[in-house]
Amino acid sequence: MIVTEDRSATGAETEYRIEHDTMGEVRVPQHALYAAQTQRAVENFPISGSGLEPAQIVALARIKRAAAIANGDLGILDAPVAQAIVAAADEVIAGDHHDMFPVDTYQTGSGTSSNMNMNEVLATLATRHLGAPVHPNDHVNASQSSNDVFPTSVHIAVTGALIEQLKPALAHLAEAFETKAELWKTAVKSGRTHLMDATPVTLGQEFGGFAAQIRYGIERIDAALPRVAEVPQGGTAVGTGINTPLGFPEKVIAEIAQSSGLPITEARNHFEAQANRDGLVEASGALRTIAVSLTKINNDIRWMGSGPNTGLAELRIPDLQPGSSIMPGKVNPVIPEAVLMVCARVIGNDATIAWAGASGAFELNVQIPVMGTALLESIRLLANASTVLADKTIAGLEANLERAAALAGMSPSTVTPLNRLIGYEAAAKIAKHSVKKGITVREAVVDLGYVERGEVTEEALDQALDLLSMTHPGVAR
Amino acid sequence: MIVTEDRSATGAETEYRIEHDTMGEVRVPQHALYAAQTQRAVENFPISGSGLEPAQIVALARIKRAAAIANGDLGILDAPVAQAIVAAADEVIAGDHHDMFPVDTYQTGSGTSSNMNMNEVLATLATRHLGAPVHPNDHVNASQSSNDVFPTSVHIAVTGALIEQLKPALAHLAEAFETKAELWKTAVKSGRTHLMDATPVTLGQEFGGFAAQIRYGIERIDAALPRVAEVPQGGTAVGTGINTPLGFPEKVIAEIAQSSGLPITEARNHFEAQANRDGLVEASGALRTIAVSLTKINNDIRWMGSGPNTGLAELRIPDLQPGSSIMPGKVNPVIPEAVLMVCARVIGNDATIAWAGASGAFELNVQIPVMGTALLESIRLLANASTVLADKTIAGLEANLERAAALAGMSPSTVTPLNRLIGYEAAAKIAKHSVKKGITVREAVVDLGYVERGEVTEEALDQALDLLSMTHPGVAR
Amino acid sequence: MIVTEDRSATGAETEYRIEHDTMGEVRVPQHALYAAQTQRAVENFPISGSGLEPAQIVALARIKRAAAIANGDLGILDAPVAQAIVAAADEVIAGDHHDMFPVDTYQTGSGTSSNMNMNEVLATLATRHLGAPVHPNDHVNASQSSNDVFPTSVHIAVTGALIEQLKPALAHLAEAFETKAELWKTAVKSGRTHLMDATPVTLGQEFGGFAAQIRYGIERIDAALPRVAEVPQGGTAVGTGINTPLGFPEKVIAEIAQSSGLPITEARNHFEAQANRDGLVEASGALRTIAVSLTKINNDIRWMGSGPNTGLAELRIPDLQPGSSIMPGKVNPVIPEAVLMVCARVIGNDATIAWAGASGAFELNVQIPVMGTALLESIRLLANASTVLADKTIAGLEANLERAAALAGMSPSTVTPLNRLIGYEAAAKIAKHSVKKGITVREAVVDLGYVERGEVTEEALDQALDLLSMTHPGVAR
Amino acid sequence: MIVTEDRSATGAETEYRIEHDTMGEVRVPQHALYAAQTQRAVENFPISGSGLEPAQIVALARIKRAAAIANGDLGILDAPVAQAIVAAADEVIAGDHHDMFPVDTYQTGSGTSSNMNMNEVLATLATRHLGAPVHPNDHVNASQSSNDVFPTSVHIAVTGALIEQLKPALAHLAEAFETKAELWKTAVKSGRTHLMDATPVTLGQEFGGFAAQIRYGIERIDAALPRVAEVPQGGTAVGTGINTPLGFPEKVIAEIAQSSGLPITEARNHFEAQANRDGLVEASGALRTIAVSLTKINNDIRWMGSGPNTGLAELRIPDLQPGSSIMPGKVNPVIPEAVLMVCARVIGNDATIAWAGASGAFELNVQIPVMGTALLESIRLLANASTVLADKTIAGLEANLERAAALAGMSPSTVTPLNRLIGYEAAAKIAKHSVKKGITVREAVVDLGYVERGEVTEEALDQALDLLSMTHPGVAR
Repeated sequence: MIVTEDRSATGAETEYRIEHDTMGEVRVPQHALYAAQTQRAVENFPISGSGLEPAQIVALARIKRAAAIANGDLGILDAPVAQAIVAAADEVIAGDHHDMFPVDTYQTGSGTSSNMNMNEVLATLATRHLGAPVHPNDHVNASQSSNDVFPTSVHIAVTGALIEQLKPALAHLAEAFETKAELWKTAVKSGRTHLMDATPVTLGQEFGGFAAQIRYGIERIDAALPRVAEVPQGGTAVGTGINTPLGFPEKVIAEIAQSSGLPITEARNHFEAQANRDGLVEASGALRTIAVSLTKINNDIRWMGSGPNTGLAELRIPDLQPGSSIMPGKVNPVIPEAVLMVCARVIGNDATIAWAGASGAFELNVQIPVMGTALLESIRLLANASTVLADKTIAGLEANLERAAALAGMSPSTVTPLNRLIGYEAAAKIAKHSVKKGITVREAVVDLGYVERGEVTEEALDQALDLLSMTHPGVAR
Repeated sequence: MIVTEDRSATGAETEYRIEHDTMGEVRVPQHALYAAQTQRAVENFPISGSGLEPAQIVALARIKRAAAIANGDLGILDAPVAQAIVAAADEVIAGDHHDMFPVDTYQTGSGTSSNMNMNEVLATLATRHLGAPVHPNDHVNASQSSNDVFPTSVHIAVTGALIEQLKPALAHLAEAFETKAELWKTAVKSGRTHLMDATPVTLGQEFGGFAAQIRYGIERIDAALPRVAEVPQGGTAVGTGINTPLGFPEKVIAEIAQSSGLPITEARNHFEAQANRDGLVEASGALRTIAVSLTKINNDIRWMGSGPNTGLAELRIPDLQPGSSIMPGKVNPVIPEAVLMVCARVIGNDATIAWAGASGAFELNVQIPVMGTALLESIRLLANASTVLADKTIAGLEANLERAAALAGMSPSTVTPLNRLIGYEAAAKIAKHSVKKGITVREAVVDLGYVERGEVTEEALDQALDLLSMTHPGVAR
Repeated sequence: MIVTEDRSATGAETEYRIEHDTMGEVRVPQHALYAAQTQRAVENFPISGSGLEPAQIVALARIKRAAAIANGDLGILDAPVAQAIVAAADEVIAGDHHDMFPVDTYQTGSGTSSNMNMNEVLATLATRHLGAPVHPNDHVNASQSSNDVFPTSVHIAVTGALIEQLKPALAHLAEAFETKAELWKTAVKSGRTHLMDATPVTLGQEFGGFAAQIRYGIERIDAALPRVAEVPQGGTAVGTGINTPLGFPEKVIAEIAQSSGLPITEARNHFEAQANRDGLVEASGALRTIAVSLTKINNDIRWMGSGPNTGLAELRIPDLQPGSSIMPGKVNPVIPEAVLMVCARVIGNDATIAWAGASGAFELNVQIPVMGTALLESIRLLANASTVLADKTIAGLEANLERAAALAGMSPSTVTPLNRLIGYEAAAKIAKHSVKKGITVREAVVDLGYVERGEVTEEALDQALDLLSMTHPGVAR
Repeated sequence: MIVTEDRSATGAETEYRIEHDTMGEVRVPQHALYAAQTQRAVENFPISGSGLEPAQIVALARIKRAAAIANGDLGILDAPVAQAIVAAADEVIAGDHHDMFPVDTYQTGSGTSSNMNMNEVLATLATRHLGAPVHPNDHVNASQSSNDVFPTSVHIAVTGALIEQLKPALAHLAEAFETKAELWKTAVKSGRTHLMDATPVTLGQEFGGFAAQIRYGIERIDAALPRVAEVPQGGTAVGTGINTPLGFPEKVIAEIAQSSGLPITEARNHFEAQANRDGLVEASGALRTIAVSLTKINNDIRWMGSGPNTGLAELRIPDLQPGSSIMPGKVNPVIPEAVLMVCARVIGNDATIAWAGASGAFELNVQIPVMGTALLESIRLLANASTVLADKTIAGLEANLERAAALAGMSPSTVTPLNRLIGYEAAAKIAKHSVKKGITVREAVVDLGYVERGEVTEEALDQALDLLSMTHPGVAR
């Protein structure tokens, strides 16, 4: 059995206590806050060696806290019990006990083991607070089921991570691009289509395009959020809300929304919400689109920074570390490469999430833990990569303005404005002549006699062939 | 060279005429409306044997028509030339010349060959209308570039197909589910989580969930539409709008929007719009989510219809054709299977679209044709599959209400309401006892002495174990 | 209902005849060779408008032919009936009746409709040959089931297409690369790692690497073939071989292998073979790897051909068609782009195939038709793309040897051999000095006083900095 | 910046020392074995919080050890230096310093930072062993480049993990299936195709099919291994082998193969091997196929185990933990669900690997670290999941033989053998009659008068309808 990291915290010298659940007795490490069911899960699932993302652990605790309050208000729990659970949950939310959640991501597909892990840890802590037994199922899990709690915890964690981490990181990156767009707004360079010399653009226009892509990424997140923020809480076992008191879902969700500051809403249809995780698939599709954007952007930056002597060399990428263990003095675009690998991972996570999302049957999807872990990983990776990209590469980019301008002038496609003066076919002849002879388009026009024959004046030529003008031909643009 | 279908319409006996372009002369079939560049493309790309989706051909013609009007208004084209192009475009929009677009999907990544194909066909037709030469580049393509025209045509065609085909088909399917949800709203059946017996639901609740999934699919399309309906038209070669007159993009896009009745808008950032097809990647992500929804729904229906004698047999799926060439009398869920294969294809097309979407560089994505063809195929397949599913399977579904109710009563999870009365651990004992003995939960409660010992009354038991009540425990649900 | 192509051949004026099957009567077009079940399928599945790949139709007919022979030999069919079916199958194999297979790919997941389509067409033709009724099920389908016939037809068609189409096309492409590798074996150019200037290689080495990638692609196909060529034929309905005579599978498969010339073998385990299409998933994985290879190769070629004036311009890509509708004289790498789009499609088809491959249950996968169509499409696209790439681009590539050599000399990484003489850290100083001053590495060595100080001699420097030597430092390489 | 785990081991109280590299000075934690370049990487890449898989760290050390020996033998390193590096590498191979490799997976795409991390750690350790300075580049990295070392380390680690972990785990799982196949070889049950009642099979045949799928998975690994085990070592910077002595690659690879016991071979073409990671893409395709197999198998087992009272209930899945936090006594197929999530992850990793594999340019793929991490994760997950599945679920499966047999007898498709006696159409009538009337097929035959009319004898009927005989109709099967 290969497990890279022993998270069960059960070294050889560990002492144990005996716990029980509905199946019988279990040996649990002496100082574990969790109990029998968590321990069974630790033993049943020695698969990946890693478990839920911390953001989901916190989200789980938030639900338990809100449920305790709602259960207290609705008479399901006595006030002291409810208060003890709230106090216990507050400890977990504060991050005090993250090492007490050893269950693997690859567990039962409903996340029941992680829900019970949380129920057991909170029961232990609440028992301490209360000085009397608090039961993991009857009290901590009251009016709940893993089938509504666990997916709700994923949606809460994802909503939070999108709003609090990814959106700000993307905005920060967009600003970095916008700063360069402004700086380079008249920095003429050659456009390239099909990788071939095209009519000129400005570096600012390109970076403005990058910024727009990232801003659109934020719009894509916003477009998906309403359905991500919708949670099944209150549906309990199968969406019917069995074993919940009247008013429970509204109350528990209002409490979660209020305490988290997130726009969490109750599922409009609890059967859709219970059986499917389509909202996560949709959200992952938005992240995947952002990964596609970042892939294109980083490839462009790498190519513009290629060289220093045999590439395009229009940009200088900041030098962060020696680039090669054998080629001395080499500088590589290491951050763009790291970001591109993040994109590859996000694309893969997206495939995992779609596959898992299609794997439900009847009242339950049974691949929720891997969806949560993969989606939260994607968000975290994209957020960190965006920040690193902005701060360590975009902020320090320098343009080789002379080279960029010189290349722009060398593009045979600068003949394009002459279409209007002499037609597409004549212009094609000029472009080909310039490439063949290794002369500029202007020289080719003259060489082919257009000026001499009076088909075009020198003045018209000057105006038509002005590079900067070609980058903003109309006023409106 | 393997080409399954010869779309070039060049049989052995074909007669040819000589056409020319900027590279020289080309032999073109005598009666072809297209000219040299189309013919070059036919010969250069004998790859798949099939070309653009018809919806994109129409969209291309719409752009040309709108451009002619705008060019006429802005003085770029003489009115009679503009009118001749409009008349020519109207013929193509009407579907009169679809056989004149023989260029393969696997062509130059900008779609230049298909744009020139349209330019040439319209030039030929417009020349006939006008009685004087209309040039494919200088007139039909005036103020345009393949680099704005071709992606715009994809976005128009996709926007149209989403709004006019897929959304209505999904609404139709949702209605079919809603009709059954209403019909079966008190039809109790066993819930199933992890495929295992759970607390009861109603068939109506399940079908209501299916309907909600499809309605959310429509929301997903609507959420993506604003960025799909944004088009690069007006950016020409590299996004700068070189060779367009002032006011052109606004005019041409307003004309397209008006004539098509679609909510087409001008790109907010022409450099984002020119270089990237992220909006198509996003839209495909929405379709992919719908495919995930349909996968789950159709699997549920297949399983509920499984049998007739060895499966769940809660539903009877309409008998449309003999199911087996060897097993006589067999009836299979053939439409759900077809729909599931459509979903597999949409998932694959989505992978193609993301891959292609990340393949741009600088001012151009160069995998636009495959993105357009794949996305339009996905929309068409999902629309047709939804219609067929609604009409040929959902409409005719019959429920085996007796069996469904009987199974619901046999689920050991009906013990769940007793948690409130006797606690989770005691309830677990009852459930296990009922399974072991092959008796009902009620019988197990009695058998284990709970009634006798007065821990629970018969009346409380009756109330707690009422199946239909378990499906709507609170008033609010 | 949106169907792009009406393949049912039922125009408005069609006359009909009445056919029947076990479900009752059906109106079938008067001149159709098929009968009731095909017509039901045409009406049940108006989804994509296109059906099986021709190669699969031929494979289906091959199986029927072989089964008739085996059934005749084993006494299941009378000799004249068997002979009539063989004669009928020969007509289909010859391609005479491809228009008689109108069933959509998106049909029942077992392909029963297409199997019955073939049974019906052959029954009609065989009835004509025999002058007495031949029954589609009792005779043509004797000792068979759709569940073994249809997947077997996919495996036969795929095996044939891999061996007869794709492998030769790849070999042809590899030869094209090898020709250039030989031609350019001493053509020094700058290596590039991370897109940044590295130590030199030769163009021949790069093209040799391309050739090796393609040759490895052929190995990958060969590695997968044994499991693709294994077929379930003989398992009939569920793998048990019910309703087959003793000796049937061996006989029918030997006949198929012999008549097709393909290395078709009987499934080693008929239950694995009946229920799963893993061999197709594996084969698609090989094609996907080839698509990955082609993506890298074509990107390299596009970049080396970028320019003519603002890019790398180490290669000149053949000029096949005008590149732009607006930029006159532009030449684009149109074939590499088409090939890259083929790769994107193959990647997508691979996702479809894996998704579909995981969708079986118990004794049958029910997404076989889409797997067959997608896999055969991938093979066809890759074969055609490889041929086009070899003939229209690689064969005509020209190298700009002077520019390539000049760039190689400008790379600061040519300092690398000095590691051995003066150590990595000193060499790094030299490289950075050369870039900063815009001088060669040799000049930088001198400028920094290494020669003057006697740390390195001019002669050692000449030897160390010889570009061509750097490309084959040892004898063995 | 969100990093879930601080692996840099730099708490607030850490003391630092000053190290330098070619870019200048860096503050490094006092007790770190690594030096400047590692520290730069730690600071440059705060992205995922986790780094290389341990298997790859060991493989990197193996290469350094082998290179030191080869460099010693070939006179590049003095013997004591070589021996000191060997001793240092042995410590890392033994697992003594895994906490000294803090570099993130999302780093420079060549893995240079991890290669330098290893160079620095070994230089520190070797310096201690030698008592004199050993340089990370000039000594530890002698005759090497990150560009050959790092990918070679991935291939070695993957080869090792496939051979030593995954293949044995799959064999163990296949044996578990084979044990059940033998046990249940005459246990008749209903076959199911399209999820609908089909002709009978035995449970043993189904489990034999599962075993065969897994055995084929092993064949798939073996088929891919030759190209996975081929390594670029010796190509150094760009494949040319610059800065290696004659004979180096052969020597270093022989040493690696010998010390690791793995079938590692030298790249047949060093330019293919340097620039591409196609072998990893191919290997991932094999794993993906195994994931597809496991998905089907686990779904079948889940369905056969569904119930206990409302599902198929042909199998009893071992009860490992309480199934529900709300539904008492519920038992769920938790291990199959965990395995299915592993499959979803492997599918996603495969998408990552293909995407990354296509991201090379010229002499280097720059997404190697994510490819290595994802592929090694896939192998580890599949190996652990297979072991857990075999030991915790398959070994303890129990069959409900009576129910399975009873269901088999209820399938209307048991009419199939009558095709031979009375034809497909008459048999279809019988099957439909039996379903409609709720009687057995035998009863339906009698009810419809076939026996009375003498069309079939009771004896023939008994023989034809024997369930077990239907599962092995011929001797050969």
